Amino acid sequence: MIGRTRDPNKAEVGDVRATNLAVVLRCVREQGPCSRADIAAATGLNKTTVSSLVSELLRRRLLRETGTTENRVGRPAIMLALDGASSAAIGIEVNADYLTAVAVDLAGRPVLSWRRAFPGNTVSPARTVTAVTALIRRVVTRIEHDGRQVLGLGVALPGLVDPDGRARLVPSLNWRNVDFAAELVDALRGPGFPVEIGNDANYAVLAEHRFGEHAGTRDLVYLTGGTSLGAGLLVDGSLRRGHSGYSGEAGHIPVPAPGGTAPLETVASITAIARRVLPDDTRDDEHLSLAEIELRIDEIVARARAGDPTTLTRLHDAAKDLATGIFTLVSVLDPARVILGGYYAELAPWLLPVVNDLLDTRGIPADEPIAVASTLSLDAPALGAAARVLDAVEQGRLPDNTTPARALAAAARAPR
Amino acid sequence: MIGRTRDPNKAEVGDVRATNLAVVLRCVREQGPCSRADIAAATGLNKTTVSSLVSELLRRRLLRETGTTENRVGRPAIMLALDGASSAAIGIEVNADYLTAVAVDLAGRPVLSWRRAFPGNTVSPARTVTAVTALIRRVVTRIEHDGRQVLGLGVALPGLVDPDGRARLVPSLNWRNVDFAAELVDALRGPGFPVEIGNDANYAVLAEHRFGEHAGTRDLVYLTGGTSLGAGLLVDGSLRRGHSGYSGEAGHIPVPAPGGTAPLETVASITAIARRVLPDDTRDDEHLSLAEIELRIDEIVARARAGDPTTLTRLHDAAKDLATGIFTLVSVLDPARVILGGYYAELAPWLLPVVNDLLDTRGIPADEPIAVASTLSLDAPALGAAARVLDAVEQGRLPDNTTPARALAAAARAPR
Repeated sequence: MIGRTRDPNKAEVGDVRATNLAVVLRCVREQGPCSRADIAAATGLNKTTVSSLVSELLRRRLLRETGTTENRVGRPAIMLALDGASSAAIGIEVNADYLTAVAVDLAGRPVLSWRRAFPGNTVSPARTVTAVTALIRRVVTRIEHDGRQVLGLGVALPGLVDPDGRARLVPSLNWRNVDFAAELVDALRGPGFPVEIGNDANYAVLAEHRFGEHAGTRDLVYLTGGTSLGAGLLVDGSLRRGHSGYSGEAGHIPVPAPGGTAPLETVASITAIARRVLPDDTRDDEHLSLAEIELRIDEIVARARAGDPTTLTRLHDAAKDLATGIFTLVSVLDPARVILGGYYAELAPWLLPVVNDLLDTRGIPADEPIAVASTLSLDAPALGAAARVLDAVEQGRLPDNTTPARALAAAARAPR
Repeated sequence: MIGRTRDPNKAEVGDVRATNLAVVLRCVREQGPCSRADIAAATGLNKTTVSSLVSELLRRRLLRETGTTENRVGRPAIMLALDGASSAAIGIEVNADYLTAVAVDLAGRPVLSWRRAFPGNTVSPARTVTAVTALIRRVVTRIEHDGRQVLGLGVALPGLVDPDGRARLVPSLNWRNVDFAAELVDALRGPGFPVEIGNDANYAVLAEHRFGEHAGTRDLVYLTGGTSLGAGLLVDGSLRRGHSGYSGEAGHIPVPAPGGTAPLETVASITAIARRVLPDDTRDDEHLSLAEIELRIDEIVARARAGDPTTLTRLHDAAKDLATGIFTLVSVLDPARVILGGYYAELAPWLLPVVNDLLDTRGIPADEPIAVASTLSLDAPALGAAARVLDAVEQGRLPDNTTPARALAAAARAPR
């Protein structure tokens, strides 16, 4: 249920206060600790309004007072900061081999990070819903035990997800038209917080925008480096899902191949690179598990570090194909950075120079290399799902304090 | 000087009234004629505020009262509409063969449309500035003679334009690093209205968004079909220029070619199609003028209509290459429509079926054909430059009534 960004031009009565609360929240995140007067100066809201908004945010435990400062002319001012201890956003990633759960506080600091093996590609969607529900309940219980309110939940899937949270097509899970959002909300028996389902690449680029080395950069492309090859697109500071929600199908980009072209994913996805560089491996059926990919990537890295010429040549060839695909993305989108995620990051020392050389040779203007490696490791999709929750809070979707957050935990314990 | 969209989340004191004026203006454009009460209901602004805003817009001659209506319960209400007679936005296109000037009123209705031959590819930038300045002065004189205020001016160039209006690279004009915005403003001796310089494809997609058959569609790609091949990208309702302002380099997309790949522009630009389909033509130097292209396109259309098999086969081959490039754009961006502009529109009966078939075959989901032909003919870039001016007004950049619009005309008449 990743919705489109609301039209900021549409003024609606009920929105004004929520918008102003969000403006104050963002101001404190970006500039805090700061005083009420600082907020008034930075936002242009008058001081009375700011005081009222701050009171509400304190009551909702989204802000806290951190004491006074003497470092200024006039009376000491009470300083405000985000209240990191009162709440958390949850992000989950479901894929063919494991489930990941992360939680972060309102300031983006990590609260927990769990990973458990799960054969997503061999079990039914219903069993996946059951497993994800159980994981979410354990996360919620832990969070509430720490006295935190759950701000919301995002779940990343490695495939096409409709705006209403239906999984249209998830090849690595063998899913087609699974109404995952509805089934999950039903299994959670009405959680007291918002639930969103989204594409892993889309969430990952949001994670980079908030937590990554290039956080705050407004034009980013994130390439997933797992069992599939997809792109998350951040354009002018916002996630762009396209008209139907299917943007970023980078794996379909044609690149040169013997006798014509091939889709980028067949020659330069992580799976394809693993096969190309270690072709004498005994296994060659179509689907490699992430565990198998990980073993191969480790082996490739070891051989490349040892200077094995065959490995280096094959890596170079694969990197050239990846570079051609990235050149296409850069020509169309002109991002500030293309971030290689997942297992691409492990191979970055051999991939990045080839990619950046090709971009440079073909005349793409750049002060610094455009292609970079992700620093968020495999947590990016789950972190991005949590980042999406924080984004929503900062855009005015404040948590509803009238619904006790522990209702869910109670429901989880109740017999059904 | 196409600037980035202002961050709508940034509340600034001085902005609030301008923003609200713009909200009212957009409301009347979308829903007018309508009453003050209708505006209050639609925008959520209170009636006193709406009355004050409407008074200012009437005083600025952006709105007008159109009489009363009896078609409702209660007192007759005074209806408001955009004042189409009081102002106009100017759009200019400079290219290798001609200059185009259009003007539209605040409601988007055409005020004038002129085209004159101009050898942009053989004269110096300075001479182009002189010619464009003379054209603008004639347009301004005409507009002011009708009692209209100039809302602003946009100038479309067929190349890379920096955000500050400098033409970085315009191959068909042989320009490199020409500070066109500064030179034009200087030659106009300080016009009393805003001046922007932009890329022709970017402006053209704005024209489609406001005036085209698919106006209002929030995700559009426009392909230029002139001497070059570029794309204008509208994503989530806004023009997206990329990090450096160079997005939409669709001509660089690799497509299959004998022995590997070729950039899309070398096989499927209008120039390339003209050469491929009429290869026995005597002329074959690198640059075809638009006049030469036009003759060839007419000949191709005549032969295709007559069912000439060679022409049809060659058109089909070119269409397949174009289709591969469009498939790449659609995979990355997922637009609602890809609009074939310029001379592509003339060849649409032969290009579109091939393109839409390939998108369909490769599994792009679509209720209606994605590739369509532009209905704006060759005026799209100039119309889009004018549309950009209207967009800016509706985003709060209201004309400054304290600067008499005829100051420019006076300056034009003054000796220098």
